[in-house]
Amino acid sequence: MVTYDLTKRGHLSLYEYLYQKIKDDIILGNLERNEKLPSKRALSEHLKVSVKTVENAYAQLLAEGYIRSMEKKGYYVNQVSQTNAISTTLSESTFKQNKEEYFADFTANDISYEQFPLSLWAKVMRETLSDYDTTLLNTRPFYGIEKLRIEIAKYLYRFRGMDVSPEHIVIGSGTEYLYSCLVQLFGDKAVYGVENPGYHHIVHIYNGHRVPWEYIDIDQFGPCAENLYQKSVNVIHVSPTHHYPVGIVMPLERRQELLKWVAEETERYIIEDDYDCEFRYSDKPYPTMQSLDCNHRVIYINTFSKTMIPSLRVSYMVLPEKLMERYISTMSFYSCTVSGFEQYALASFLEKGYFERHIRRMTKYYENQHKKVLEMFRKSALSKVSSIYEYPAGTYFLLKIDTNLSDVEIKWSAKEHGILLNCLSEYYYDNQQKYPATVIINYSNIEEKELERAIAELEKIFLI
Amino acid sequence: MVTYDLTKRGHLSLYEYLYQKIKDDIILGNLERNEKLPSKRALSEHLKVSVKTVENAYAQLLAEGYIRSMEKKGYYVNQVSQTNAISTTLSESTFKQNKEEYFADFTANDISYEQFPLSLWAKVMRETLSDYDTTLLNTRPFYGIEKLRIEIAKYLYRFRGMDVSPEHIVIGSGTEYLYSCLVQLFGDKAVYGVENPGYHHIVHIYNGHRVPWEYIDIDQFGPCAENLYQKSVNVIHVSPTHHYPVGIVMPLERRQELLKWVAEETERYIIEDDYDCEFRYSDKPYPTMQSLDCNHRVIYINTFSKTMIPSLRVSYMVLPEKLMERYISTMSFYSCTVSGFEQYALASFLEKGYFERHIRRMTKYYENQHKKVLEMFRKSALSKVSSIYEYPAGTYFLLKIDTNLSDVEIKWSAKEHGILLNCLSEYYYDNQQKYPATVIINYSNIEEKELERAIAELEKIFLI
Repeated sequence: MVTYDLTKRGHLSLYEYLYQKIKDDIILGNLERNEKLPSKRALSEHLKVSVKTVENAYAQLLAEGYIRSMEKKGYYVNQVSQTNAISTTLSESTFKQNKEEYFADFTANDISYEQFPLSLWAKVMRETLSDYDTTLLNTRPFYGIEKLRIEIAKYLYRFRGMDVSPEHIVIGSGTEYLYSCLVQLFGDKAVYGVENPGYHHIVHIYNGHRVPWEYIDIDQFGPCAENLYQKSVNVIHVSPTHHYPVGIVMPLERRQELLKWVAEETERYIIEDDYDCEFRYSDKPYPTMQSLDCNHRVIYINTFSKTMIPSLRVSYMVLPEKLMERYISTMSFYSCTVSGFEQYALASFLEKGYFERHIRRMTKYYENQHKKVLEMFRKSALSKVSSIYEYPAGTYFLLKIDTNLSDVEIKWSAKEHGILLNCLSEYYYDNQQKYPATVIINYSNIEEKELERAIAELEKIFLI
Repeated sequence: MVTYDLTKRGHLSLYEYLYQKIKDDIILGNLERNEKLPSKRALSEHLKVSVKTVENAYAQLLAEGYIRSMEKKGYYVNQVSQTNAISTTLSESTFKQNKEEYFADFTANDISYEQFPLSLWAKVMRETLSDYDTTLLNTRPFYGIEKLRIEIAKYLYRFRGMDVSPEHIVIGSGTEYLYSCLVQLFGDKAVYGVENPGYHHIVHIYNGHRVPWEYIDIDQFGPCAENLYQKSVNVIHVSPTHHYPVGIVMPLERRQELLKWVAEETERYIIEDDYDCEFRYSDKPYPTMQSLDCNHRVIYINTFSKTMIPSLRVSYMVLPEKLMERYISTMSFYSCTVSGFEQYALASFLEKGYFERHIRRMTKYYENQHKKVLEMFRKSALSKVSSIYEYPAGTYFLLKIDTNLSDVEIKWSAKEHGILLNCLSEYYYDNQQKYPATVIINYSNIEEKELERAIAELEKIFLI
């Protein structure tokens, strides 16, 4: 019988780890096509885990097509050719393998591409092409072209009230890339704090760079200093403007508490991820932690992939002076990862005021969409068995459902009804039962008709 | 007196480390403006290093403007404001701070931008813009758009005789970025071999990722398996087609020796950096190691930044199946770092045959330039005190000079005459005296007139 050392699961939950190991064995051919898997009970006894754990792992494997269930017979390994293994794992969520298999995708914290002023952007790119002489060909400064850094500084001043020198701005091809740079910058002694629940990917980045990190539980205001002391971390990643997926806006007191914490030791840093700051509906945004910080220990980070278009890979960070110097002296050999052409085009888009205009229009658009979507959910029969947690920002909310289904069963049932969704529990590494049956509804990329149909399908699942 | 623990210098030479430490102290203000530095003799006695070491460090600091020499008085710290500190270290070579200070730059292993068919590239970009609809906006597969991967596979087949599946090609914004990915991919047990002499930057990447590495001395054929066994490395980076800066083309026997070595253990890998393969003049290139390798242990890596334009940040690697699977299962959460637009434009440029045409034209151009430049050096008076080491490839050669000047003095004198150059010794971490007074002449980006003037200036230095 398959045997796995479950103590090696790191920060994964038991079921996630078990699912991962079995999946790997199927891909690697250790479990062969049509091989029968042990029954849930047998495997649970063998591995000394609960039947529920095995059940959840099997359900996930079923949902992703790695195994099939044959009535009264049990679970069998599906054929997964090498090529299939590649294509089935191509997208992060293997759920998305076949577009035909679903009509509504609530998992993508995405933007509405249709709203992007594509012709305006194409016009600016054409203009940039006309100016595209040999001076544009050369490699750019490794931290980005000056014109773009100036435009970003101006934008941050006008839009976020931040007083930032263009000399402290670093351009990179995506937030994940900039994170990799930061990890190289912080040096050997850094121990990283990861919000729990929070931004998944960062754990992969830390693991990829072999640096130590700790989960930091958040309360209703975000991470608190006490937890940071306790876990002895010295770098914490936060998104105070709008936490994903919980939606928290960190109140001023908590921001100040963290700024007090960061000031106490010279090598403590806060990474302020402001990726969603642009789309707020009602209240004015709080000042950023970067602008509240007198001790130069906050790294501000943001991206144009969310506000412009995802396929444009431009993010930026604002480094405190000391880190900027370290960056220059240790990492200047890296070429800037964004092409010169696109940096110039984006700078021009900002300079001409097109970006701000686009943001203002989108904020209005998302605000209306937010209202409309919430109303659709509130007016539906689904509201009898669910309640909504929402913040006046972003393009998602949480839906707490009154049901006996486990979270894996919810995902699976939804998938069978053509709907992709994630549960809040997936963003917790432990204590996944803290907020059961709480579904994250990312609605920005779903048409009204599909939404109506999705609500109707969800009703079928939860109102029986 | 300034005191440094020289045992902490890692792989730096004594003088490089000393230079770095003093520079840092000047930037950080630990050594103040106008402060007098200890005399060379005094510091050499204090630190128990040779006077030559201190001399070299001071010469470098002088050349970069961190200190000044006052006749009969000694060395003094120059004013380096924070902003200056940043701008003086902006480019990798601080020598390049002021364009006015030099007229000829032999340090950049660069291309001749003027030869790039800019209007053709702009035309393809414009055409791509016309097709730029919402399907182009979405994030691309994390390993690159299919069309570009197919075009690269076709190109590798035609130009390098490689039979590569587009599914094994990964696109990224620059070779350094792809290296970072590889380091994350190889896992905990990898020990990296770095050619000595060889590609500098890779050491920074390894250090940035905190992975162990060893220098591997190369002989006239490249690294040999014996050294790899001895240092117990399991990943070696090589550039068999054309080594920089030595120019070696690795013979078939050595390639096979390394392929035998790599096949002996499952987690051994060769990274084949083929960045300069396009520009060969006489003989046909050897088959790549990737295509000789039956065991799927060679990662082929190449870039368009050298063949197209440096500001276009597009590189690619070909992963063996096993690594591709690992890449997909562990790193698919990273977004592709190259924008969708530029991937489509480049794919189109390749598809229409423009890229191959450009390469053929450039090879002819560089071949003529190579002949012309060598002739200029051979016909000059400089040839009386120098000899040329050259290979029929690339856009550089080595010039061995018969002189009593140390390498630092050579660099410094050249700088005073308006010429930037690097010495071969800089590419060695130890044994810097193995090839003294051997200068690397990268000529691709220098006009004929400047070249004449540069030769005349070099004559002034070495013919007195």
